[in-house]
Amino acid sequence: MMPFSYVSHLYCPKCKKTYGTNEKHQLCECGSPLLVAYNLDALRKDLKPEIIANREPNLWRYHELLPVENPEHIVSLGEGMTPLVPMPRLGKDMDIEQLYMKDEGIIPTGTFKARGAAVGISKAKELGVKKLAMPTNGNAGAAWSLYAARAGIQVTVVMPVDAPAITRNECAIAGAELYLVNGLISDAGAIVSKAIQERNMYDASTLKEPYRIEGKKTMGLEIAEQFSWELPDVILYPTGGGVGLIGIYKALKELQALGWVQGKMPRLVAVQAQNCAPIVKAWNEKKQVSEFWPNSSTVAFGINVPKALGDFLVLDALYKTDGCAIAVEDDAIIHEQRNVARLEGAFICPEGAAAFVAARRLRERGWIRKGERVVVLNTGIGLKYTHTVDIEVPILQPGDHLPERRDYS
Amino acid sequence: MMPFSYVSHLYCPKCKKTYGTNEKHQLCECGSPLLVAYNLDALRKDLKPEIIANREPNLWRYHELLPVENPEHIVSLGEGMTPLVPMPRLGKDMDIEQLYMKDEGIIPTGTFKARGAAVGISKAKELGVKKLAMPTNGNAGAAWSLYAARAGIQVTVVMPVDAPAITRNECAIAGAELYLVNGLISDAGAIVSKAIQERNMYDASTLKEPYRIEGKKTMGLEIAEQFSWELPDVILYPTGGGVGLIGIYKALKELQALGWVQGKMPRLVAVQAQNCAPIVKAWNEKKQVSEFWPNSSTVAFGINVPKALGDFLVLDALYKTDGCAIAVEDDAIIHEQRNVARLEGAFICPEGAAAFVAARRLRERGWIRKGERVVVLNTGIGLKYTHTVDIEVPILQPGDHLPERRDYS
Repeated sequence: MMPFSYVSHLYCPKCKKTYGTNEKHQLCECGSPLLVAYNLDALRKDLKPEIIANREPNLWRYHELLPVENPEHIVSLGEGMTPLVPMPRLGKDMDIEQLYMKDEGIIPTGTFKARGAAVGISKAKELGVKKLAMPTNGNAGAAWSLYAARAGIQVTVVMPVDAPAITRNECAIAGAELYLVNGLISDAGAIVSKAIQERNMYDASTLKEPYRIEGKKTMGLEIAEQFSWELPDVILYPTGGGVGLIGIYKALKELQALGWVQGKMPRLVAVQAQNCAPIVKAWNEKKQVSEFWPNSSTVAFGINVPKALGDFLVLDALYKTDGCAIAVEDDAIIHEQRNVARLEGAFICPEGAAAFVAARRLRERGWIRKGERVVVLNTGIGLKYTHTVDIEVPILQPGDHLPERRDYS
Repeated sequence: MMPFSYVSHLYCPKCKKTYGTNEKHQLCECGSPLLVAYNLDALRKDLKPEIIANREPNLWRYHELLPVENPEHIVSLGEGMTPLVPMPRLGKDMDIEQLYMKDEGIIPTGTFKARGAAVGISKAKELGVKKLAMPTNGNAGAAWSLYAARAGIQVTVVMPVDAPAITRNECAIAGAELYLVNGLISDAGAIVSKAIQERNMYDASTLKEPYRIEGKKTMGLEIAEQFSWELPDVILYPTGGGVGLIGIYKALKELQALGWVQGKMPRLVAVQAQNCAPIVKAWNEKKQVSEFWPNSSTVAFGINVPKALGDFLVLDALYKTDGCAIAVEDDAIIHEQRNVARLEGAFICPEGAAAFVAARRLRERGWIRKGERVVVLNTGIGLKYTHTVDIEVPILQPGDHLPERRDYS
């Protein structure tokens, strides 16, 4: 009988040391994040994509490529198989005929963080974790708090005071122990690190546990399946911690190893904000790691990450796929968010809007070529960001007539 | 070749007059809403559920049972096939072993209103509509504004000042002409009615155009398909305008006519708020229509509808299925919203929480029997409601240690 998961072991991408998946691990002894390996040779023989096609439309359809070994440990709210939405009018506007949005707003908790939380929490449950802690820019903390509640796991979350306010509600209603910090996610991270030691909790910080990335990976698996296993030319990803980009790259490599996709890898693009662009700086300087970006700020709060633990993996994916890194300004982000709503009817988050700005710029520069198939990741629903839309609405009294039509041109 | 849609005509459920589906219609001459009829006899011969199983996971998988005749007119953001989530821990808490949530928060715009908007706007586009107007309690206006933007249709929206604030952002960013009214949706409706006349717009008010209900209907189709065409025993629905309940009932009748489902209809339950319960009052008094409910108010703003145009259709569905109507209090709603998050990890809207309260009450009374399979409609994501969660979060400084663990019991 086929195993539910073809997970094999954990390995360190830096020093190559390996670890088992049946006990709790965080970072490698050498300080690097750990990655999950699968028995792809066996899976290549056992599984065909046609079998996947008949499964439920959520990310657990790829369970052989996920680390949870016993289906009873799955903690799911139905996440995954988000829409891949054609964007013909916006595409015409930016001269990219085949423009698609992978809409990660259409998922429990309203952001792609649900994927990491679903798989991360499920594996934590399988490993017997009872208490975990993490710093967050808001959305990951919200997602982990809610999935942990479903699993009966206690969560401690520390987030910057400037994180989207609604994510506080999500953590609080889920029963998480929540703190704000007068600072950035790096400051939250330092507080969590101390608490982990003091209280002996599982550390669910980005890439300090190896399974979140496996959840994020499913974005890449879904994009491939939704294009009938023919890969697009370019994938643009708003990059803070960069786990999604690392995950998509890992997914595509695994699909290549399985023989489910052929040909050239999509060129991966890391999109950052002008005032928080450590990956872009490193890429411009052809470096393998990034430096801490001081005094970072951006309206796209989810990508306000001054130094990512997985920076070297992000940069590696960019170099290996002939991708690039690009920074965009906040005012362009706000303008593009409006554009996407007016032309395509999607109220996206500023991080997603940043990636659309990047697509526009890269087409202008000719880096994206005429006729190429381009996928932009919208990482969350616009509902989470109440302050990115300026509105002034007339108030009428019962019985009033409408005033003359206002001009919105 | 099979037609894309098996739509036949419009008919009046009151006076039985019929109309065509190739020209614009609003209400029947007699003042009743119009319903859509299909060639079910032909469809019964032409289509089997197994064919549907292989289609994309969105509501257009049921296109034969939808009114859009040319697929080019479809305006879609990938809506539908929302998760049917088992709720084992909450179910245990309320002694309903087989409790499920149909989670309509996992859909573009974050509420079930996306279904009505997708199908309503698609059909409006097919009929050549260029401008439409509607009153709204927020979420429908947001959904119609966004889908209309995608279709290139102009929208005018009037909503109460107390409607969820984020829905203003959605309308505004989509480019809708937006007004607030110091009153209720009934006051907004009166203003829109005058504007419709003055400006010759298409009236997209609830049930004043016949196609929104067809979109809502797909909730019923999906529930049936997700249970492998075996219907549950009870479906609870938070009821304002009641279109979703009417739609679910219509869907199940159509599935019966197709022979895709057998046996007894689920008992349909209309859930209202204690301070806005016109349907409940009518049902208690065994009446066929409801009366205007004065001075209505509830935290579940989406069901603050003092008089629904389709009340007679809602009541008919309750009587025909041996269902019932029940009102719940605001404090119970807020408490249940928290319960659902803590036990199941879902941050639902207060309207959905109202329906869970109703399930609990009906089980206590024995109306829901031991072992019955129960589906609660959560009509939207909790993110839209920032004020239903009380939070007070400690603020730390960079470098701080966490204080002692707070007690959340």
